[in-house]
Amino acid sequence: MYRNFSIVPNVMFGRGAFNQLRDIIAPKRQTAGSYFVFVLDDVFSGKALEKRLPIEGNDLLLPVNVDDEPKTSYIDALVQRIGDYSPVKPDGIVGIGGGATMDIAKALSLMLNNPGSSADYQGWDLIKNPSVYHVAVPTLAGTGAEISRTAILTGPVKKLGINSDHTLFHQIVLDPELLDGIPKDQWFYTGMDCYIHDVESLQGTFINEFSRAYGEKSLELCRQVFLDDHRDKGDKLMMASYFGGMSIAYSQVGACHALSYGLSFVLGIHHGIGCCIAFDQLEEIYPQGVKEFRVMMDRHRITLPRNITAGMDQKDLDLMVTTALNLVPLWENCLGADWQKKMTRERCLELYRRM
Amino acid sequence: MYRNFSIVPNVMFGRGAFNQLRDIIAPKRQTAGSYFVFVLDDVFSGKALEKRLPIEGNDLLLPVNVDDEPKTSYIDALVQRIGDYSPVKPDGIVGIGGGATMDIAKALSLMLNNPGSSADYQGWDLIKNPSVYHVAVPTLAGTGAEISRTAILTGPVKKLGINSDHTLFHQIVLDPELLDGIPKDQWFYTGMDCYIHDVESLQGTFINEFSRAYGEKSLELCRQVFLDDHRDKGDKLMMASYFGGMSIAYSQVGACHALSYGLSFVLGIHHGIGCCIAFDQLEEIYPQGVKEFRVMMDRHRITLPRNITAGMDQKDLDLMVTTALNLVPLWENCLGADWQKKMTRERCLELYRRM
Repeated sequence: MYRNFSIVPNVMFGRGAFNQLRDIIAPKRQTAGSYFVFVLDDVFSGKALEKRLPIEGNDLLLPVNVDDEPKTSYIDALVQRIGDYSPVKPDGIVGIGGGATMDIAKALSLMLNNPGSSADYQGWDLIKNPSVYHVAVPTLAGTGAEISRTAILTGPVKKLGINSDHTLFHQIVLDPELLDGIPKDQWFYTGMDCYIHDVESLQGTFINEFSRAYGEKSLELCRQVFLDDHRDKGDKLMMASYFGGMSIAYSQVGACHALSYGLSFVLGIHHGIGCCIAFDQLEEIYPQGVKEFRVMMDRHRITLPRNITAGMDQKDLDLMVTTALNLVPLWENCLGADWQKKMTRERCLELYRRM
Repeated sequence: MYRNFSIVPNVMFGRGAFNQLRDIIAPKRQTAGSYFVFVLDDVFSGKALEKRLPIEGNDLLLPVNVDDEPKTSYIDALVQRIGDYSPVKPDGIVGIGGGATMDIAKALSLMLNNPGSSADYQGWDLIKNPSVYHVAVPTLAGTGAEISRTAILTGPVKKLGINSDHTLFHQIVLDPELLDGIPKDQWFYTGMDCYIHDVESLQGTFINEFSRAYGEKSLELCRQVFLDDHRDKGDKLMMASYFGGMSIAYSQVGACHALSYGLSFVLGIHHGIGCCIAFDQLEEIYPQGVKEFRVMMDRHRITLPRNITAGMDQKDLDLMVTTALNLVPLWENCLGADWQKKMTRERCLELYRRM
């Protein structure tokens, strides 16, 4: 049985495409008294990008803070805030920012049409009602959040996405100009999220030609960006991210993403840097990928945090191991059906201890 | 201003995916007394594939003949035939075949909801009403018809597609098993349609990183299929076709496709073989591409028809030149804004005379 893969149905790509956002959403302003919600990473508050937002009439500007990765409690509070703002539902949500901001925009668009707490929907295909129309404008590239069918949230008991076809954006606007001026570390860690999931996807046991075509091209684009410093590297990184996300269609990520989830859940470490910290310890599983990753780190003079698990007590370490090993499909993809023989709790713990 | 590119929103890929067609369309059987229309290339009449169609209840099996490329008069007659079959509109159309059959399925799904003759809609964005739900199951790979926003038809005065976002399929089922057993010439000519449009797209003036990423990977896949005889060549050719079609998003085809349209319109030559005949004369415009194309021809022992324009009178030759040169965006992409200085009627005629 193959998955019937759903894709974001509308894409605009190009330097300066952000300027067309007003025209893109105009036909969706359909309900009398309604409005759009602009979910904006608050690093842009008061900045030029905020002033360029096509805000009209009753529209709500909703700055969001992503110093921590999005929590289900934060989503629930933001849904409440929109409800307090107006008794009418918004005609649309636009998320402007990196992976965390895009995940917030996705989760809000779902939770406006589905009752209860966002924590109730962490899992696969638990969403019942279609979402509000929602649009992504990424300002970072690498997560694949713009194209993925998940909104990754940290809940009371787990870090897990709301996975559903309804989670998919209806529209994405890929404007490589928005990548100009990102701090180098953030650019690198987010880009490595893409590089690493390409390696995990291509080396996994689930891969087919659909996912391989996307994954291979994404990897090649990452190399042009991080090894060749190509002059169109912003454009190429945006495409790498998009292709990397598409590569997951008939594949999965692997060991590194599983371990990174544990780091995020217990230590609050952001996903991109968490992937880099974990990947650096996975030479035995991804020898070629880790070797090339280290060349990229050297080239861009990136220094990873070390000894991050040094002071942790056994209970937290155990929780981290449990969090990672609960991600069954990731381990199956990485190590095959008998993964549990290969990745024991002891081995997983040892990997965390090295970080 | 960038184009807001629409994409077929649901894709299933995999060997044997055809077996899931029944499940895929089941949720679309919504209207009491309605039915699905299965538009099937009549080369499959009485064959195993016909027997595997998930026909139920009132469904209509509609074998179509594509010995000639689809004409607007043929589409109009088929719409009439569906109207005679039932006063209720179908819940969906499934096209099973190559590019011509897929174009017929697209055109029918549009014309069931739009009044008049299909010839009235040859052009760009002339369609007013959304189409009936429609699905493609390609049995040939290379045209990109499964993913393109056009249904190419030969009308009373021109060969030109119905170009519209509504033309796009709602669903495609890419089953590489269906490519097994295609006659070699047809396999080659259809595959070369893809190879050639990759070359035209990548070497054109319109290209950006979105289209380049798709076009480059499609070209690489074509090389694996036609130069390396890769063992997964069916899977790879299906992906090459899909990526080739996606590459046109922010690009265009070029000189070869323009000349091929002339050959089709006046001589009734099928698109794939027409592209090959034209491309073989375009060394001055696509030197690398034509060189590699000839290596592929040699490898697969393909012999092109020669002297096909030898017996033509001046009037028909003139009409062929006019047909080709009317495709302004193709020439702009190929030769730039001042293309008319570079591709005069005389030069175009000379190219045709050599074929």
